[in-house]
Amino acid sequence: MTKQAIAVLGPGSWGTALAQVLNDNGHDVRIWGNIPQQIDEINQQHTNSHYFKDLVLDENIKAYTDLKQALADVDAVLFVVPTKVTRLVAQQVAQTLDHQVTIMHASKGLEPGTHQRLSSILEEEIPSTLRHEVVVVSGPSHAEETIVRDITLITAASKDLEQAKYAQHLFSNHYFRLYTNTDVIGVETAGALKNIIAVGAGVLQGLGYGDNAKAAIITRGLAEITRLGVKLGADPLTYSGLSGVGDLIVTGTSVHSRNWRAGYALGQGEKLADIEKNMGMVIEGISTTKVAYEIAQELGVYMPITTAIYQVIYENADIRTSILNMMSNEFRSENEWQ
Amino acid sequence: MTKQAIAVLGPGSWGTALAQVLNDNGHDVRIWGNIPQQIDEINQQHTNSHYFKDLVLDENIKAYTDLKQALADVDAVLFVVPTKVTRLVAQQVAQTLDHQVTIMHASKGLEPGTHQRLSSILEEEIPSTLRHEVVVVSGPSHAEETIVRDITLITAASKDLEQAKYAQHLFSNHYFRLYTNTDVIGVETAGALKNIIAVGAGVLQGLGYGDNAKAAIITRGLAEITRLGVKLGADPLTYSGLSGVGDLIVTGTSVHSRNWRAGYALGQGEKLADIEKNMGMVIEGISTTKVAYEIAQELGVYMPITTAIYQVIYENADIRTSILNMMSNEFRSENEWQ
Repeated sequence: MTKQAIAVLGPGSWGTALAQVLNDNGHDVRIWGNIPQQIDEINQQHTNSHYFKDLVLDENIKAYTDLKQALADVDAVLFVVPTKVTRLVAQQVAQTLDHQVTIMHASKGLEPGTHQRLSSILEEEIPSTLRHEVVVVSGPSHAEETIVRDITLITAASKDLEQAKYAQHLFSNHYFRLYTNTDVIGVETAGALKNIIAVGAGVLQGLGYGDNAKAAIITRGLAEITRLGVKLGADPLTYSGLSGVGDLIVTGTSVHSRNWRAGYALGQGEKLADIEKNMGMVIEGISTTKVAYEIAQELGVYMPITTAIYQVIYENADIRTSILNMMSNEFRSENEWQ
Repeated sequence: MTKQAIAVLGPGSWGTALAQVLNDNGHDVRIWGNIPQQIDEINQQHTNSHYFKDLVLDENIKAYTDLKQALADVDAVLFVVPTKVTRLVAQQVAQTLDHQVTIMHASKGLEPGTHQRLSSILEEEIPSTLRHEVVVVSGPSHAEETIVRDITLITAASKDLEQAKYAQHLFSNHYFRLYTNTDVIGVETAGALKNIIAVGAGVLQGLGYGDNAKAAIITRGLAEITRLGVKLGADPLTYSGLSGVGDLIVTGTSVHSRNWRAGYALGQGEKLADIEKNMGMVIEGISTTKVAYEIAQELGVYMPITTAIYQVIYENADIRTSILNMMSNEFRSENEWQ
């Protein structure tokens, strides 16, 4: 593949890790962000110390606060911004771009209020004259491991298989590999909804339960997010793949996961406001819980784990009572697929 | 449910934990084993210290070395013996039983040589005049957690749903819950084959790889054991359930798992003979790897992870080279389902 120019929007942990993968593959990488000190730090010290304390980035990775400079002549734009600002940033990109590019995103969430998937926001805000079909990059991936070039396998999904393949070739190398998929709805909902189950797995372990309970909540959680996704038009098989089971394993069984850690702290009796303050990073699972709860209510999908976590977070329900009630209700099913 | 008399064949860690669950539910439980010291210890000290150091069992749990005494007037017989002796014990049960009972098993393996599932061995060796349809009890369950009454959800599968429901009611209580299933092939192959992937996950971590790699091998492993199971007649959905994904999570991500620990030690450069000696417990994944490899060869099913582990264990292949070759071959796939 010839050298491509790619703008990475969002200098968070995952954006920085993906920028390094692209730089390793010989591409021209421009990170864009809106905190001048952070952008200056990347350009001058070649570090992003809020996320990766001592790690030194390659000097070829440039960073910008000016979106016009970041987007000049790029072949592709990768959105890695928090869900809640995706629409705003997409509007700015639409106003700034002056040529057609590949649009990709690597965020995991659903927009509060509209309940929209992120690719749908990007399609809505960026006219098709400026973009090809959107590519979703999603899967089991702690940024902390990818940044040290540990093995990572994820999914590139697009309605247009050629666009998914373009992303596959852009990112793939000896430690980082993308598989293609055309089930955008499945990949995006799996990536977003698994954060809810990760919070739930953290809660159970924070309450003192063990690995059997963890496997139980993850498996039953997988069943309920599959039920919702299928109702939204997804292929159930997608949930058995990297962006479903794979991501759920990484998010639901690892202390690296901020969603799991938030759940664990809730289970240990901490208050959500304190948890969010201490974490200093966006916990997508918290807002996704609300969106998923609302969609489930609207479409009549049975989601007992999501409902219990919603009640704990948004209705001040007692955490131990809610989770145990949920588990004993859930236990009433006679077979696995009810 | 009225009080039932149940013989639990095999005083290993899982047999002992299941005996305690049945005793908690008010049933008459008789453990059978062939090591006199261990049986005496259960009867006199009410401990099984080889597996659970300081844990005291209920005095109502009786143990026997005489199979005839253990089986006298029982309603059900639960096999929890190692795969390699299942046939032998089944033959003894067939010779000893004098009335029709429910036959259940809670072991996870495939018979070397014949490649048979355990329920098929039980069907073959115990005439149908002495039994109903066999029930398979399988799922994510560390004995160490069930014995302290931590939450555990597993599956009871039988061709006869009524028999599965009988097992469900026999075992279920506030901390232990069974879901029914009629896909015996799926539940048994998932339970057996997941041990191979757990060994592989252990190997990768023993070699120094992280959580992204772990999620990758578990997800790709799930895909390959599903491929084999479906070829043998299983329902692919079963692999997304408790006996598939659920058990794979517990076995592939936990230091409690002996299969994972064996893989980890292999990855760290230990010799298999030493690992088996130090462990002092049966590592089913080792012999299952050979059986699965042979079945895959015979049926032409692509199982790259199983093949790599087979080559390491049985053909003295270099572990780092085999695993990395496997991963880079596997990486060549263009999409998730190849």
